Amino acid sequence: MRLVDDSRRLPVIQPDRQPGPPPVFEKIGLLGLGLIGGSIALAARQRWPSGLVVAVDRKDVLEKAMVRHAIDVAADDPVVLADVDLVILAAPVRQNLELLARLPDYLDKAAVVTDTGSTKREIVDAARHLPARLTFVGGHPLGGAARGGIDHARADLFAGRPWLFTPASDAPGPTVERLFAFADGLGAAPRVMTADEHDRLLAYISHLPQLVSSALMHVVGEATHGEGLALTGRGLQDVTRLASSPAEIWSDVSASNADQIVPALDALIGVLGRLRDGLGSGGAIERVFESANHWRDELLKSKPS
Amino acid sequence: MRLVDDSRRLPVIQPDRQPGPPPVFEKIGLLGLGLIGGSIALAARQRWPSGLVVAVDRKDVLEKAMVRHAIDVAADDPVVLADVDLVILAAPVRQNLELLARLPDYLDKAAVVTDTGSTKREIVDAARHLPARLTFVGGHPLGGAARGGIDHARADLFAGRPWLFTPASDAPGPTVERLFAFADGLGAAPRVMTADEHDRLLAYISHLPQLVSSALMHVVGEATHGEGLALTGRGLQDVTRLASSPAEIWSDVSASNADQIVPALDALIGVLGRLRDGLGSGGAIERVFESANHWRDELLKSKPS
Repeated sequence: MRLVDDSRRLPVIQPDRQPGPPPVFEKIGLLGLGLIGGSIALAARQRWPSGLVVAVDRKDVLEKAMVRHAIDVAADDPVVLADVDLVILAAPVRQNLELLARLPDYLDKAAVVTDTGSTKREIVDAARHLPARLTFVGGHPLGGAARGGIDHARADLFAGRPWLFTPASDAPGPTVERLFAFADGLGAAPRVMTADEHDRLLAYISHLPQLVSSALMHVVGEATHGEGLALTGRGLQDVTRLASSPAEIWSDVSASNADQIVPALDALIGVLGRLRDGLGSGGAIERVFESANHWRDELLKSKPS
Repeated sequence: MRLVDDSRRLPVIQPDRQPGPPPVFEKIGLLGLGLIGGSIALAARQRWPSGLVVAVDRKDVLEKAMVRHAIDVAADDPVVLADVDLVILAAPVRQNLELLARLPDYLDKAAVVTDTGSTKREIVDAARHLPARLTFVGGHPLGGAARGGIDHARADLFAGRPWLFTPASDAPGPTVERLFAFADGLGAAPRVMTADEHDRLLAYISHLPQLVSSALMHVVGEATHGEGLALTGRGLQDVTRLASSPAEIWSDVSASNADQIVPALDALIGVLGRLRDGLGSGGAIERVFESANHWRDELLKSKPS
């Protein structure tokens, strides 16, 4: 996020507005307009046409967002955030931490601050240093797509998907409730857990599958030099679907949750090693496959089909 | 496959027949009516209504196949194979080897023999001991589904999918051509490679992804005790789709291709170890993800969208 002089602020666009339900937050400031930030913008403008969405990102991203009518005010300078009610940090994890530290310079009145990062302990800790006028509650909408970026943003990205909030123990109840109403308004199912619970759980259900999918695609591609990829069926395609995910986002996530991801990776490496050693005998395969069959059934049962 | 007395042979069913193209093989004998055998039966009867499909399996499976009009003659005794033109071994890999050894007892005239197993070196080697009247060409249709069994069989399982044949160097050209015409008739894209090439390639594009998907589902399920599975999105669901695969089939496959799967597993374990050690620094993640991005693009490009 470059800071530039105010003259480069982009024009306000105000397309035809329809009345709608009163917005939970009148003026939302989004820092970062990738897949998640862009989708929040699209969903919020659709849900609350009378609210205002202010966004900060690089100019080329903002131009795309304006073409899609995703935002009302676009700027590559956070000074536009001065009077927002809700700030959403929607950049990659490490950048969110830097932005959080600089927020007090831009926001001089009371505001709620949340983020959308995939790991929560670090930013919840960092937010303890915010001035009292800024109330932080960590957030993590679990909507996702195989490819990131504003180009893939869509208003229904969060429909029916969990939106996890990780309030610190002293977070005001009414603020959490407002954020629940906000996530609910965007179609998501808000839920609360501690940052510790979040980071451990996500290490297994999100970070580990991502690393495995990328590692597998890398190994298969290198070993076959791409020969035979045309022969592959839905199996390899599904298992490697996450392998399109960008390195920069996952470097951040991995670094900020390393202590939880290491044991998850170790557990998987251990199981793969036991499978390797038991390939001929069948015993290890039977144990792992039977457990996998069971948990896969549970996974499918947990979905509203 | 139990051997029972001939009186238990099930009745011949001859539903209304329409004329159709002349069948490549007049009378096909299928040993095993799971997902693959059942789908071959359905596809062959649809394609060549004047041909005959004879099937051997357990009685309960045969009954299901008859209800679906998948077969013409059903028996739990291989004596019904006596005068077929083509035998297809479509049981699990190890059972196919046992059936192959017993085939000469049942087939007294010339016939083509193929199989549908996921590994090819072992059965191609074993087939060298067949009497001259039986011409064996290993086969592997790559159609697949998340769940096995006759219940999931369908006539279009092979449509547009590769069907690999691994003829020994002395296999007669016309036999291979007939098998190509057969696979082509069922909608598949036949292709030839050596058994060695097949087993190495499949270790990477099929066996490794299967083991990884099952291992991951096992680790995630055990670590979370199923808590949080409801929170997972398409990511974990896709990566673990293969985890419904049955242990018995994959014990066989793994045992018969262990020497190729071991280096594939070792390569993956190595990469996961490097990711683990580099979680904080980002360098390892960047290298693996960039390679994965590249190969994932190649994988998608190799598909007719």
